[in-house]
Amino acid sequence: MILITNDDGIYSPGIQALWDALNSFGDTIVIAPSSQKSATSHAITISKPIRVRKVKKVNGFNGFSVSGTPADCTKIAINSILNQKPAVLISGINLGANVGNNIIYSGTVSAALEGAMLGIPSIAISLDSFQAGRFELSKKIAIEVVDFVLKNKLPKGTMLNVNIPDIEPENFLGTRITKQGNQFFNDDYEKRLDPRGKEYYWIKGEIEDNDKDPVFDGRAISDGYVSITPLGFNMTEESYISDLKDKF
Amino acid sequence: MILITNDDGIYSPGIQALWDALNSFGDTIVIAPSSQKSATSHAITISKPIRVRKVKKVNGFNGFSVSGTPADCTKIAINSILNQKPAVLISGINLGANVGNNIIYSGTVSAALEGAMLGIPSIAISLDSFQAGRFELSKKIAIEVVDFVLKNKLPKGTMLNVNIPDIEPENFLGTRITKQGNQFFNDDYEKRLDPRGKEYYWIKGEIEDNDKDPVFDGRAISDGYVSITPLGFNMTEESYISDLKDKF
Repeated sequence: MILITNDDGIYSPGIQALWDALNSFGDTIVIAPSSQKSATSHAITISKPIRVRKVKKVNGFNGFSVSGTPADCTKIAINSILNQKPAVLISGINLGANVGNNIIYSGTVSAALEGAMLGIPSIAISLDSFQAGRFELSKKIAIEVVDFVLKNKLPKGTMLNVNIPDIEPENFLGTRITKQGNQFFNDDYEKRLDPRGKEYYWIKGEIEDNDKDPVFDGRAISDGYVSITPLGFNMTEESYISDLKDKF
Repeated sequence: MILITNDDGIYSPGIQALWDALNSFGDTIVIAPSSQKSATSHAITISKPIRVRKVKKVNGFNGFSVSGTPADCTKIAINSILNQKPAVLISGINLGANVGNNIIYSGTVSAALEGAMLGIPSIAISLDSFQAGRFELSKKIAIEVVDFVLKNKLPKGTMLNVNIPDIEPENFLGTRITKQGNQFFNDDYEKRLDPRGKEYYWIKGEIEDNDKDPVFDGRAISDGYVSITPLGFNMTEESYISDLKDKF
């Protein structure tokens, strides 16, 4: 069974495209947030109830919507909704690349990382565009990567973070296996006044692309390559351990 | 300037205890969530406005509450509220340890990790208890670690994740420099019926402590030691890169 989830919500065009691509594998199930959950990272819902509802689409999949975060969707799918472990989990197709520092904020990646934490071979797939449209290359790559993972599994605790350049399949240059790079959003907060004259802030930001080296994820997609990065959830900064041992 | 934040909210006893401890350093500022934000991980608020309000306490600090997540607090503090970069950021004192897999879900750690991402030497501090009470050892260690960071800085992109056993200072055995271990919550979802007879789920879980090796964070605190783990935000699983290169 292939478990499909995302962070843009079960009614997003990206998850529809992903289901369209993967439906040929046979046994697929869609369990995704009931609404848009971008930038929710690995948040989980602990202080309030979660609702799970059956979703029936006219031209596509049936599935379940979950009133929580992407990580909630993965957890509740595997712990409560499904009666078998999925062979693979795939999260996406996200609108907007998840590369560099921005991986840390990504709900798309977190849904897959939660899968990896629960022992499911897991994939996140994101398109380098905020417009829903050119999903053809993403769909082609989704099929290839799912096929790879079904045949090869993945090391325990490792997921694949796949990013797709916004190009037509005929312009596809190939795939690079990359590392998480240094691209980040240079954030700022715009101060505004509401209709009652009270201040509020709204985050805005521009992507800073400071990765020149083709070893990095953001560089790969801006060069027109598909980027595949193996990610894990161990955040230990090993290189600083011996220094610290001298100090405490 | 020392920037103090947390994920339990600006009115929590843990942040009050942290301010009480660090006030002796002089220039402190508290900028923290307006309400409880446990388990929000590194989520940020992008789809709605953020409100910032001055908070004045009777017996303690003045500061600012932020209607967002812990990572929002760090971002807006450094980008918009403060007119200088803090010398150190410290997040806590959290009620409940942040060790092993649970680091991934932690708002306390994410506030500090966002600090590290923005180039601020940053610390998360958590007490291994869900009861507010024995803060004395945490306060002592907070002072020591802040003092260390003020004197030594930290490598770029590295933060310190400090966990404190729930013991009195006189029973303190020492400090271990540790790695993120494998302790995790074995989650389950309890299905219940609301007063209208509709189903809902609520997450529950028990800690699984499978770290026998004293090199790990969870083991250190259950042995009665303070645990200090250097953490970063690069999630690349380097060991799997060459394997993948053969496949794609």
